[in-house]
Amino acid sequence: MVRGRVSTAVLILLLGVTLPAGAQEGPRAEARLAELGLELPTLSEPFANYVRAVRSGDLVFLGGHTECEDYTTGKVGKDRTVDEAYQAARGTALCMLASLKAEIGDLDKVVRIVRLVGMVNATDDFTEHSQVINGASDLLVDVFGERGRHARAAVGVASLPVNITVEIEMIVQVED
Amino acid sequence: MVRGRVSTAVLILLLGVTLPAGAQEGPRAEARLAELGLELPTLSEPFANYVRAVRSGDLVFLGGHTECEDYTTGKVGKDRTVDEAYQAARGTALCMLASLKAEIGDLDKVVRIVRLVGMVNATDDFTEHSQVINGASDLLVDVFGERGRHARAAVGVASLPVNITVEIEMIVQVED
Amino acid sequence: MVRGRVSTAVLILLLGVTLPAGAQEGPRAEARLAELGLELPTLSEPFANYVRAVRSGDLVFLGGHTECEDYTTGKVGKDRTVDEAYQAARGTALCMLASLKAEIGDLDKVVRIVRLVGMVNATDDFTEHSQVINGASDLLVDVFGERGRHARAAVGVASLPVNITVEIEMIVQVED
Repeated sequence: MVRGRVSTAVLILLLGVTLPAGAQEGPRAEARLAELGLELPTLSEPFANYVRAVRSGDLVFLGGHTECEDYTTGKVGKDRTVDEAYQAARGTALCMLASLKAEIGDLDKVVRIVRLVGMVNATDDFTEHSQVINGASDLLVDVFGERGRHARAAVGVASLPVNITVEIEMIVQVED
Repeated sequence: MVRGRVSTAVLILLLGVTLPAGAQEGPRAEARLAELGLELPTLSEPFANYVRAVRSGDLVFLGGHTECEDYTTGKVGKDRTVDEAYQAARGTALCMLASLKAEIGDLDKVVRIVRLVGMVNATDDFTEHSQVINGASDLLVDVFGERGRHARAAVGVASLPVNITVEIEMIVQVED
Repeated sequence: MVRGRVSTAVLILLLGVTLPAGAQEGPRAEARLAELGLELPTLSEPFANYVRAVRSGDLVFLGGHTECEDYTTGKVGKDRTVDEAYQAARGTALCMLASLKAEIGDLDKVVRIVRLVGMVNATDDFTEHSQVINGASDLLVDVFGERGRHARAAVGVASLPVNITVEIEMIVQVED
């Protein structure tokens, strides 16, 4: 327990993450979105026969998302730069917050962003997946502070639906 | 909340899903399987040192499955068509229902198909993953109605064990 | 229910897994680690803006890990053999146990290894993913006995961060 806490503290120092003032004082994600000048995008329809989010108990499972509007296509390492893919990951996280809000009504009900998997449409010699998926992780920490800090996997996949650049899946713990 | 419901309603309209009559009246998955003329296949043994399903609380985690019998191999976009892969995804979902029934005894105990990840063994320029994984999603909605509607990710992977065409992983909420 | 139990029994026979004596008698993972002569490695820092593990209720979600120290790089089927990748998967599982211990304090609090996804950095014609990820599964069953038996998916991905050979993600149920 103590070790876990120390480890997190060390991480914060090493990663140089600046936590937004007040992030630890309680949920204020909605206010933070406004401070950052971010607007939640309009939800586009899923590509196929599924729903964007399913709640089970206090967990919300968000299916694979990409950006809601003007989504980025193309393979990183060939058609897209790391910076372009970072922006796509950031836009994907914003789209996921729109889905999450549609499901739970208020982003201040978020207890914790639990786990995120970032799938990058990448060439087979690409190595900078972490930098790409940081686009999503940075936004989540910026909006939710400590509550936005999540377990994560980033991988390079051979191909993605309609050639999107990034697809992200997420599990979020919310108030009962 | 309201927004979430409206969105689901719109989805159903747009996707043209016809819900089986009575699907909303309560669990009747077992009867529905019979109506569809579907029989659960015999469980084959896992390829390696793991189990097919683990229950934790009211969630059942089903590991990566492919079809139980005569499983399809080959890469979509090269060796297999989208239609063949759709059938493989459908057969995989049926095999997962056999694993699920072995775990919980009765498919009418299913509260919700929560989340599904469909991995397609695909070429690096393949784009129709959604159409392939619909093979699984369509079957689940056909058998469970609204309870079968799930969060989903579909991706193209570089390769799969013994060159199977489709591998699907799933989380299901069941009665306590 | 009965069918599920029979199936597990058959599996144990077929897979030839020798359960460590006493594994069923209660949690003794810490003692078992010592018996196996295994030491938990020192945790390295994550590559990017995330944490190694998040607990939500009685589930611990471990993000994508590779080995803690001297991690293996290169693609299986080209740069790395199945045996080398098996060892990388084993070392990854050991690293995950170090993360898990940092989170929960004592590995004897593990109730069940629930679900594991093993992503292998592999060529597009690779087929032996199961044998690779067995490196992790075998270790977990060796340390936790029946409690270590998990649902699993093994896949071949196009590329991984900093060209690591194996990345594993895991969900673990722990004592309340």
